[in-house]
Amino acid sequence: MIGPDEMPTYPAERLAEFSARVFRHFGVPEADARQAADVLIASDLRGIDSHGVARLHAYFHMLTLGRINPRPEIRIVRQLPGTATVDGDNGLGLVVGPWANRVAMDKAEAVGSGWVSVCNTNHFGIAGYYPLQALERGLIGWAMTNSGRLVAPLWSAERMLGTNPIAIAFPGKVEPAIVIDMATSAAAFGKVEIAMRKGLPIPEGWAVDAEGRATTDPRRLIEGGALLALGGDREHGGHKGYCLAAMVDILSGMLSGANWGPFVPPFALQQNLPKGSVGRGIGHAFGALRIDGFIDPDEFRSQVDDWIRAFRAARPAPGTPGPLIPGDPERQAEAVRRTSGIPLVAAVVEALRDVSRQTGIPFD
Amino acid sequence: MIGPDEMPTYPAERLAEFSARVFRHFGVPEADARQAADVLIASDLRGIDSHGVARLHAYFHMLTLGRINPRPEIRIVRQLPGTATVDGDNGLGLVVGPWANRVAMDKAEAVGSGWVSVCNTNHFGIAGYYPLQALERGLIGWAMTNSGRLVAPLWSAERMLGTNPIAIAFPGKVEPAIVIDMATSAAAFGKVEIAMRKGLPIPEGWAVDAEGRATTDPRRLIEGGALLALGGDREHGGHKGYCLAAMVDILSGMLSGANWGPFVPPFALQQNLPKGSVGRGIGHAFGALRIDGFIDPDEFRSQVDDWIRAFRAARPAPGTPGPLIPGDPERQAEAVRRTSGIPLVAAVVEALRDVSRQTGIPFD
Repeated sequence: MIGPDEMPTYPAERLAEFSARVFRHFGVPEADARQAADVLIASDLRGIDSHGVARLHAYFHMLTLGRINPRPEIRIVRQLPGTATVDGDNGLGLVVGPWANRVAMDKAEAVGSGWVSVCNTNHFGIAGYYPLQALERGLIGWAMTNSGRLVAPLWSAERMLGTNPIAIAFPGKVEPAIVIDMATSAAAFGKVEIAMRKGLPIPEGWAVDAEGRATTDPRRLIEGGALLALGGDREHGGHKGYCLAAMVDILSGMLSGANWGPFVPPFALQQNLPKGSVGRGIGHAFGALRIDGFIDPDEFRSQVDDWIRAFRAARPAPGTPGPLIPGDPERQAEAVRRTSGIPLVAAVVEALRDVSRQTGIPFD
Repeated sequence: MIGPDEMPTYPAERLAEFSARVFRHFGVPEADARQAADVLIASDLRGIDSHGVARLHAYFHMLTLGRINPRPEIRIVRQLPGTATVDGDNGLGLVVGPWANRVAMDKAEAVGSGWVSVCNTNHFGIAGYYPLQALERGLIGWAMTNSGRLVAPLWSAERMLGTNPIAIAFPGKVEPAIVIDMATSAAAFGKVEIAMRKGLPIPEGWAVDAEGRATTDPRRLIEGGALLALGGDREHGGHKGYCLAAMVDILSGMLSGANWGPFVPPFALQQNLPKGSVGRGIGHAFGALRIDGFIDPDEFRSQVDDWIRAFRAARPAPGTPGPLIPGDPERQAEAVRRTSGIPLVAAVVEALRDVSRQTGIPFD
């Protein structure tokens, strides 16, 4: 990866303003455009470059073609005090996701536990954004989403599942929160693309070729192969990663009436279209818990602090800095990027300039 | 592993009856003893030999020493309509677990979503037992538990987490349910013990030695090393397995006021005691969802059937039978064992005979 010092950096506020203006250009209402930009920029701030403004061009493309509804009428189609299904009316996932997450949090505040499944929606940014929102309301929050097929179930040669992430966060008292945000695939597709561009092999356990054979050649994956689920092969627990991806797929896609498995539409237009449709859009799931429904919140937060300190103090493995706390890398990235700006690779800058040219919104 | 045909087999009913009588011998009430035996035998039936009657001797030992309360007053110590914390009064996890799981299911039936955290409890058998109970009430159910330390967080040399399993199940209509039950460690400790007895190496990515260096020597793990979390090293996503184990630890141990991380007491007496105590007993977590709080249950079950058929039809990888559906191996084991009986290795038979001798309850 190119070091940040070799890349131009942009203040987060400026990228957020540009993104919001691009969304508004397509008729996205002001508040929704700001919300969508906030999710995108949270990703850049947290160092997850693949899910931030690097994707603005793809959103732009989908909006240009009318594939995403800029003014959705998002609504609850079924509910109980602790559950709901939300229909996103084919809106931006960056808008539908936060809306549905608020429903989960409202329900948790009302009865202690809320769980919301979402259909007819699109890519929702980083899963980690949503539990961070829950932290602001003093809740434990989960987020999951299914996504376009890239991952083969163990013992298959076929892409059947997305990278289907799971996120959850727990608030500390003095220490920062524990924030988990992880794809259920063995590796990110973006890492495979980087290896291919550099002509490097990928580690064993990441991928199979189009015939389902293990491969370390990134081209073999990209040309019709598949990522493996977390764990890789059978011996290393690849069946477990497959189980997690399946869980996310069913809670997000099936419980809501969205598409699931190989039928989930891809994020970007250039990706292969699925074989058909078994529901509407992609699916998300959000959960929320009221901590005081279980334990005194102050006591809980103190214990989270103690957990963090105990794990930081665990004896390091040789040649490593010792165990991290989930969320450390993202928090460290954010501390740097809030002051120094967000580094963007040339291809992303060029894509943003292209959006600027086509919309007339100034970028730089 | 020795094939079942080389081992004596025992009818499930007989093992259940023997186990229940052993529990009653220590003053466990009749219904609780049957419940505990039911959880144990479910494990043997489903082919998870490590968690069934193979553990009866350890329960016997703990009850003999008064380390487990045979007549606990299990109670809800805090609750909201969709949440509860259950104090297991140091009872058998095989009794406390089903009790708390019923609370989660009752709450889900009342408000759609129920989440229960449990403290002051002990080992609860296979996690997969609990979502199967939820299926019988037409619910989606989760179960998690923390357990004695065996697993090092990524980049640590120290055992800090248990194998912390996650289970969840989804009902089909014509097809059998999808049943996920997985430890969050790269492999089961039992597999390492088998390799050691046979003098065989273990795969890379399973373990580190006492200094935190990767090892394929099972003795290095057992003599002060640690299992790795699902994913293994950093390159293969070991940070993700660590995150999952942490999630289970916090939802089970910390939200309830139980012990967490390195402080979780071990299952059996011969294991190393933790450094201290930060709560009461081990912790479990149970979740339950009412399907009709999201979607028409009949529609959901039909879609689960379609999911299963789509995944069974996915192109197989060479030299494999093609993808399994989560729960297939356990269901297949149960079909055989319900009719042919449960095969027990000589050491387990001998342990049961020892329990028989010491209690006067006839075994064989």
